[in-house]
Amino acid sequence: MPPFQTVGLIAKQGEPGQVHGTLLRLSAHLHARALEVLLDAESAHLLDAVVGTAITLDELGARCDLVVVVGGDGTLLHAARAMAPHGVPLLGINLGRLGFLVDVSPDDIETAIDQVLAGEFTSDHRSMLRASVVAETGTERSDAALNDVAIHKWNTARMIEFETYIDGVFVNAQRSDGLIVATPTGSTAYALSGGGPLVDPALDAILLVSICPHDLSNRPLVIPGDRRIEVRVRAQDQGHVQVTCDGQNACQLPPHAWLRIERHPDRACLLHPKGHDHYQILRAKLHWGRHSSGRASSC
Amino acid sequence: MPPFQTVGLIAKQGEPGQVHGTLLRLSAHLHARALEVLLDAESAHLLDAVVGTAITLDELGARCDLVVVVGGDGTLLHAARAMAPHGVPLLGINLGRLGFLVDVSPDDIETAIDQVLAGEFTSDHRSMLRASVVAETGTERSDAALNDVAIHKWNTARMIEFETYIDGVFVNAQRSDGLIVATPTGSTAYALSGGGPLVDPALDAILLVSICPHDLSNRPLVIPGDRRIEVRVRAQDQGHVQVTCDGQNACQLPPHAWLRIERHPDRACLLHPKGHDHYQILRAKLHWGRHSSGRASSC
Amino acid sequence: MPPFQTVGLIAKQGEPGQVHGTLLRLSAHLHARALEVLLDAESAHLLDAVVGTAITLDELGARCDLVVVVGGDGTLLHAARAMAPHGVPLLGINLGRLGFLVDVSPDDIETAIDQVLAGEFTSDHRSMLRASVVAETGTERSDAALNDVAIHKWNTARMIEFETYIDGVFVNAQRSDGLIVATPTGSTAYALSGGGPLVDPALDAILLVSICPHDLSNRPLVIPGDRRIEVRVRAQDQGHVQVTCDGQNACQLPPHAWLRIERHPDRACLLHPKGHDHYQILRAKLHWGRHSSGRASSC
Amino acid sequence: MPPFQTVGLIAKQGEPGQVHGTLLRLSAHLHARALEVLLDAESAHLLDAVVGTAITLDELGARCDLVVVVGGDGTLLHAARAMAPHGVPLLGINLGRLGFLVDVSPDDIETAIDQVLAGEFTSDHRSMLRASVVAETGTERSDAALNDVAIHKWNTARMIEFETYIDGVFVNAQRSDGLIVATPTGSTAYALSGGGPLVDPALDAILLVSICPHDLSNRPLVIPGDRRIEVRVRAQDQGHVQVTCDGQNACQLPPHAWLRIERHPDRACLLHPKGHDHYQILRAKLHWGRHSSGRASSC
Repeated sequence: MPPFQTVGLIAKQGEPGQVHGTLLRLSAHLHARALEVLLDAESAHLLDAVVGTAITLDELGARCDLVVVVGGDGTLLHAARAMAPHGVPLLGINLGRLGFLVDVSPDDIETAIDQVLAGEFTSDHRSMLRASVVAETGTERSDAALNDVAIHKWNTARMIEFETYIDGVFVNAQRSDGLIVATPTGSTAYALSGGGPLVDPALDAILLVSICPHDLSNRPLVIPGDRRIEVRVRAQDQGHVQVTCDGQNACQLPPHAWLRIERHPDRACLLHPKGHDHYQILRAKLHWGRHSSGRASSC
Repeated sequence: MPPFQTVGLIAKQGEPGQVHGTLLRLSAHLHARALEVLLDAESAHLLDAVVGTAITLDELGARCDLVVVVGGDGTLLHAARAMAPHGVPLLGINLGRLGFLVDVSPDDIETAIDQVLAGEFTSDHRSMLRASVVAETGTERSDAALNDVAIHKWNTARMIEFETYIDGVFVNAQRSDGLIVATPTGSTAYALSGGGPLVDPALDAILLVSICPHDLSNRPLVIPGDRRIEVRVRAQDQGHVQVTCDGQNACQLPPHAWLRIERHPDRACLLHPKGHDHYQILRAKLHWGRHSSGRASSC
Repeated sequence: MPPFQTVGLIAKQGEPGQVHGTLLRLSAHLHARALEVLLDAESAHLLDAVVGTAITLDELGARCDLVVVVGGDGTLLHAARAMAPHGVPLLGINLGRLGFLVDVSPDDIETAIDQVLAGEFTSDHRSMLRASVVAETGTERSDAALNDVAIHKWNTARMIEFETYIDGVFVNAQRSDGLIVATPTGSTAYALSGGGPLVDPALDAILLVSICPHDLSNRPLVIPGDRRIEVRVRAQDQGHVQVTCDGQNACQLPPHAWLRIERHPDRACLLHPKGHDHYQILRAKLHWGRHSSGRASSC
Repeated sequence: MPPFQTVGLIAKQGEPGQVHGTLLRLSAHLHARALEVLLDAESAHLLDAVVGTAITLDELGARCDLVVVVGGDGTLLHAARAMAPHGVPLLGINLGRLGFLVDVSPDDIETAIDQVLAGEFTSDHRSMLRASVVAETGTERSDAALNDVAIHKWNTARMIEFETYIDGVFVNAQRSDGLIVATPTGSTAYALSGGGPLVDPALDAILLVSICPHDLSNRPLVIPGDRRIEVRVRAQDQGHVQVTCDGQNACQLPPHAWLRIERHPDRACLLHPKGHDHYQILRAKLHWGRHSSGRASSC
C-alpha cells in the first residue's frame, strides 16, 4: 500500500497568478497517480474552479496524510503550524526561489512527488515553540511557532526593560528593542538578522537573541531545548510590548501578564526528496563563497 | 567514609608570590582535616619547602580523588586536561578575581573545602574536544581541549583557505584568519572574542566560529556534540597553519595532513560549592547591567 | 566683564526628589556670584518656590548666555535641541552617574561653575541633524536631532522595505526593522546598540546603521557630514513607519511622503571644565578594561 | 595636447596565462593611439617578447603620466604605493571579476582607454597611511599603505597587549589578536572582515578595528584623517608582533620600538571612466539584495 493516499494542497495567498499554474500541474499529477486531493478554502479560492474539495485547514489536517505546500518559507511556516497537531508531513515547493524550508523547485514537481510517493524521502522533524501569555489567573493564550517567538517594543520609540529566567533561574535584566527566542529552524530567520548564530536543526536547542541591546556585552545565548523561558516585562512598559510567532501571529502582552516559552509538544515534519543537504541550502541561500570583503590575498 | 581522602594541589605557575600564601593556607586546612596532600612538581617548587609529596601531574591524577586548583581559568584548563583521563574532579580557587571556571574566592577557601568534603557540592561534567592531526598514513598526533581548538594562520599576513566537513558532509570553503572550534565551556573564551554566542554548558554542542572571514555572510555555527569535524587546508597554505588547544598546546599542520575534531572520550569534572549559578557568573564576568550604550530612555 | 551674566537652568522632569537639592545648591551658588538665574517653567515647577523667573524654553534661549542642565543625557538632548537656535552653550551636570554628555559630577558643581565663569572651559561644538518629512507638495515638517534620526517599523511585526539615496545617488534597497542615521555624538547611543562604530565627535560625518537587516552583508556606513540622505519607503509599508529624533520626538510618515536627513544649520555647544577627555569618558562608560571574554592568556 | 603621452603597464604577477592576452591587447591599442608604452621589469617578463621598455617600478613612476594596472585589487594596491610618490594616476582593469579598486572590465578596455585619453574620466584621490616603526633613537623604518596597516600577533597563540594613543591622548589598553588601522579605501578590505563599517572614500577619516578583542565592549572607531596614532606593545609581547601594510609588506616590531601611523603625505590617484559609481560597486561586490536571512515577510 502506498504511504500516502490523500494529499492536501496549501498555497501562498495574495498572488494567485504566481501559484495558479503550479497548483494545476500539481493536482493533475496527483490525480494521475489516483490520489485524493484536498484544498483548504483559501487555496481552493486561488484555483477558482475547485480542483479538489475545499475544507478548513483543520479538516485538511485531519483528513490528509501528506500536505504539499506551494509558496515561500512564510507559507510553509503557516501550513506547518496548522498541520503539526495532526502530525501530517509537509513537502515544500518554492515558486522559483529556493527557501530554507521550501526546497523543491517547481521544475522538479513531478519527479519530487513521485520520489516521495515511492517512499524515497527523508523525514525531517523540527521542534517548535509554544509561547504562552500567563497572568496571575492562569494561562490566557498559547501560540505555536516553528521559527521564533519575538517579544518587541510596540507603539513606542523607547527601549523596553524586561527580565529573563530559564527554568526559574534569573538570567538577566535587559533594556533593548526586544528578544527573539528561536528554534534551530528559526536560526536562519529573524534571529540571524539580529546577529545570532546558525544552529543545526538536528541540535535540540533554543536560541535567544536580543534586539539592539543597551548592554554592549549582551550576546546570543544557546540553551538546551527542554528549558522553559520566562520573560517578565517591567510594569511601566507592559502596554508597549507585542509578542509575535513566526512574524505572523501577534498579540499584545496585557498588564500584569508575562510570557512563557517552551518546547511545543507537537513537531513539524518536513519531507525532503532523497539527497537533501542542509549545508547545500545554507551555501545557496547565504551565497557563501560568492560575495566578500576586499582583502587582497596577493599582489 | 568521607568521599575524598587524597587531595592534589595544582597552582598557577610563574608568579609564586601570588599563590604561596593560598597554597600554605590550603594545605594547612587539608592536613587539619587529616587528608593526604599531594603536589605536582611545579606546584611543590612554588612552596620551596615540600608541603606534600611532589609528583608528576600524571601520578597526581592516578593517586588523588580530588584536585584543588589555585590560579585563573588558564591554570584550570591545564589541570583539567591532565586530570580528565583519570576522572579526578577539580575544585577551582581563583586568586581574587572571579573566573568562568575558578569560582571559589580565596576568602572562602576553608568554607568551600569543608562543604565539598561534607559532600555538599554540585558535579559539573564538561565535554572536551579531541583534535587529531591526520595524515595519509594515519593519525599523527592527538590533543585534548576543554575550551577550544583553534586553527589559525601562522607566519603569514595572508588569509588561509580551508574546507570544513561535518560527518563527511561538505559545509563550506572559506578564506579567513582561522577557525575556532569550541565546547560550550569555551564559548565564553576565544570564540566569544571572535563573535560567537554563549552556549549553555548543559547543551551537548560544538561551536564553530570563523576568525575575520572574507565572506560577509559567514556566521557562527552550533552543531550537535557528537559530530566529527574535518578541516582541510588548501595545499599552498599548509605551511602556514597552526593548531592550538585551549590557547596552550600548539602544533603546526604538516603538509598533506588535515585536522579532525570530535568529542573527547574523557570529560572534565568540576566541583562547585552548593549555590553555584552559571548565569550569576556570566552576569559578573560580562558586567551585564553595568556598562552600556548611551541610548537615552527619557528626557 | 565676565562671559556669562544670565544663566538658565533646565532639569530632568519626572523625578523632583532627585534634582531638587542640586537645583537649590546650583541657584544659591549662581546668586552668590551675582548672576541672574532663569528657569524654564517645568524646572521652576520642580522647585515649587520660584528661585528665578519661570519662562518658556524658547524665552530661556533668547535671554540666557549659558544654560546649566541637571539630569541625564536625555535631559541634555532635550535642552540642546531647544538652545541650538539661540546659540546658547550648555553645561551638563549629571545626577551621580556619568553620562556621555553630562560630564560634571554633582560633587563638583561649585568648582565646575567657577571654572566656567572664569573662562576656563573647552567649547565643544556638536553637529546636529535635520529630519524633514517631504511630500509631493513640499516639506511638511522638520525636526532637529543631536543624537540620531531613527526610521523604524511601527505597528507591524513585518520588516519594512525602503530605498536610501545619498546626494541623489542610489545606495541600496533594504528590508529591515529600520535605519538609524546618527551624528558622531549619537554614535554612542542607539547606533551603538545596533552594531555601529564609535565616531569621534571631531569628525564631520554621518553614520547609517540598519536595524536587523535582512541582507547579511549590510554594514554600518560612515559618510561625509555634508551629505543629504533620502529614505523612500515602499508604498505598502508607508503606514507602518515612524520617524523619531533622539528617541524623543516622533511622527509617522504620511502616505506618499519621504524622509530627508541632512546637517542642521544649528549646532549644539557643550561646555566642559578644563581637562575634559572624550576617551576617558568612553573608557568609563564602556567599562573598557573591566569586563571581557574568558580567553586564558597563560597557564 | 593630449593629457597622457607615456603610459606604463603593471600586471598581476604569478599567473602569466591570465594577463598575457589583456596586456597584448592593451599595448596594441595604446600603440595604435601613438602613445609610448613602458613596462616594469616583472610585467615585461610576463610578455616574454618586450612590448615596450622594461624598467624599474620607480623609473616607471618617473617617466609615465598614466599607469594602467591589469589584475586584481592586490595588484592595484602594489602599483598605487609605487606610483604615489610620483603622483602618477592609475587606471585599473580587472581580469574578469570586478574589484573594489579595479573597476574596468577587460571587455571594455579599448572604450575605457579612449575615454580616459579624451579626458572623460573622474579623478579619485585616495588618502594613504604611513606606518613608522619608531625606537628611542628615532624612526627606523616607514612604509606606505593604501588599504590598511595591521598590527597582529606573530608566532604565538596568545593575545598581545598594547596601548593606543591618538594625538598623544590615551585611548585604551587592549588585549586582542591585533589592530587594523585603515583608510576609507581599506574599509572594504581586512577591516570589513574584522567587523568594521564601510567608510565613504570622500570622508577624510581613519578607521581602527580590533581583531578578536578580549574586551566585549570594544568597538570599531572612526577618527579624523589628520590624527596621529601610536601603538605601544607591552614589553613581553614585543617579540610577537608583526606590522603589515596592505597585507603585503611586513616587518616585525623590534624590542623597545613602537608604531606610529598617520596620513601619508602622498595620495593615490585612481582614474575612473565617466559614470563611475562607488555605491554600484558596493552593491555588486557585497551582493546587496541577493542573499539574506530567511525572515518571512508574509504567508
